[in-house]
Amino acid sequence: MKTTDILIVGGGPAGISAAIWCQRLGLDYLLIEKAEQLGGQLMGIHNQIVDYPGQIYATGKDFNDQLIHHIHHLKCNYSVRTPIKWIDLDKQIVKLQWDETLLHYCYLIVASGTSVRKLNIPGEQEMIGRGEIYSATKDRHRFKGKKVVVVGGGDRAFEGALLLADCGADVVVVHRSKQFRAREEFRKPVLEHTRISVVEDTIISRIHDNGSQVDYVELENVKDGSMQTLAVEGIFVRIGVQPNTKFVKEYVCHDEDGYIQVDTCQRTNHPSIYAIGDVCTHPIFSSISVATSQGMIAAKHLSLQLSCRNVD
Amino acid sequence: MKTTDILIVGGGPAGISAAIWCQRLGLDYLLIEKAEQLGGQLMGIHNQIVDYPGQIYATGKDFNDQLIHHIHHLKCNYSVRTPIKWIDLDKQIVKLQWDETLLHYCYLIVASGTSVRKLNIPGEQEMIGRGEIYSATKDRHRFKGKKVVVVGGGDRAFEGALLLADCGADVVVVHRSKQFRAREEFRKPVLEHTRISVVEDTIISRIHDNGSQVDYVELENVKDGSMQTLAVEGIFVRIGVQPNTKFVKEYVCHDEDGYIQVDTCQRTNHPSIYAIGDVCTHPIFSSISVATSQGMIAAKHLSLQLSCRNVD
Repeated sequence: MKTTDILIVGGGPAGISAAIWCQRLGLDYLLIEKAEQLGGQLMGIHNQIVDYPGQIYATGKDFNDQLIHHIHHLKCNYSVRTPIKWIDLDKQIVKLQWDETLLHYCYLIVASGTSVRKLNIPGEQEMIGRGEIYSATKDRHRFKGKKVVVVGGGDRAFEGALLLADCGADVVVVHRSKQFRAREEFRKPVLEHTRISVVEDTIISRIHDNGSQVDYVELENVKDGSMQTLAVEGIFVRIGVQPNTKFVKEYVCHDEDGYIQVDTCQRTNHPSIYAIGDVCTHPIFSSISVATSQGMIAAKHLSLQLSCRNVD
Repeated sequence: MKTTDILIVGGGPAGISAAIWCQRLGLDYLLIEKAEQLGGQLMGIHNQIVDYPGQIYATGKDFNDQLIHHIHHLKCNYSVRTPIKWIDLDKQIVKLQWDETLLHYCYLIVASGTSVRKLNIPGEQEMIGRGEIYSATKDRHRFKGKKVVVVGGGDRAFEGALLLADCGADVVVVHRSKQFRAREEFRKPVLEHTRISVVEDTIISRIHDNGSQVDYVELENVKDGSMQTLAVEGIFVRIGVQPNTKFVKEYVCHDEDGYIQVDTCQRTNHPSIYAIGDVCTHPIFSSISVATSQGMIAAKHLSLQLSCRNVD
């Protein structure tokens, strides 16, 4: 069986930072990422990153290129296209998808981030399968003069609706209640925009396609159960994110929204499991700075734990 | 009287990050820095910065140049050469050294960092006055073939001693006890180095100069009180750092080492005072990533506090 002192799961900014610090502290570690490349949610940022002190990046990809250059320069140990087949958190053993052997770890750093929430309705998976996942920033010009639906009542839904409407799309915002979480700076412009209509107390119950793309949706009023259909050419689902905790969920404490609970050293309640980045950070404080900071803290704390072990 | 919602005191990475986020969140704020320029302790880093994910910087100055470019680009509100004359933490009023008017703030973000500890012995202030503050990294070549004393028993003292000895200096490490905090990777090479001698249970009690530079020091054995003198051409005081909390010390809780205690939102016990960066971070976790992360968290939390106020 192979062994590593520290197994970092997830190659976004948090995991990359943990790897950089593990490398610098001379620790025995491995970073695994299931996707084709490192970067995590960075790759989905199509606008400027202005709030990571030191550099302004044109897109998430630009920043990610720098991160990859950074960890190559330091010769960090990482492996992409490396999903977990199964993990035994009691025995601290992991089976990687493409590896015949088992890997024993002493400490696990969960850096698996968040995923966008889905509607979980008929037609949605087919839509995703056809690649109909749009960025309001990147794709806003292709919906000029077309009708689109934006689902959600928070900042990201309202900001997206404004971007699309300002570029000439006819936008219908569908929200399941009359309460909007979106902050005032987005709410008023949305409610007053001539190209945006808001349908309250309503959910999308089904997505229909015409064989090649979205054709129309069925809307259901949650108060009186009445139904209607709406012809649209694009759907933007903006109902928030959820932490990717499936593989550790039974073992670690999390809050009511599913975020893993950690102490100031990034320790979970389980002695061999740490968590860093968005998987343990509520969206309000989610940022690249916080993710990289938590990666540093976990690595530093583990270096102390491991050096105590070596002394014993 | 002038007013600002948020007054950030200290222009190192933590304060700069807070300013970037305040700017981005559209808050009313001002960053003040007493020194000639922004950067804080960054300006004293003469080796590569490899652990701030995204970019490797040749020196702290290089990184600082980028930070300054960043906040200029965002048009952040800051003022250098702006020491505080006095502050009334009850009335939330500050008088700046060069400003005739008073400034009222709603929230104070303390980002004043740490300073290196001094020996507080005769001759030290004169030495500092002559500019005899050396960096083991930057100045190591100028002490080739010369005798220097390094004071301290921690990582920075031992690492500095090694750097100097490897460049040909004859190094005497003076430490007040027999216990060294320095980690194993530094301890063994220091104790075995032919150009390094270690004097335990000893303090420097006085520094003598020859009119233009350090000439010799008086050493005192703390066990038996015996005295000796030692001719040296350079002194490196490496006895740790202390948080710069003088102006808020009576108002906020701090730990036994003087670091301000904060919660996960960077709040102190005092409702109008937040703290970020090294002033509230024990050296073990001190890093640029942690400082910038805390700046982000404080600004974001304050934006929530202030928007609640506006609603009331």
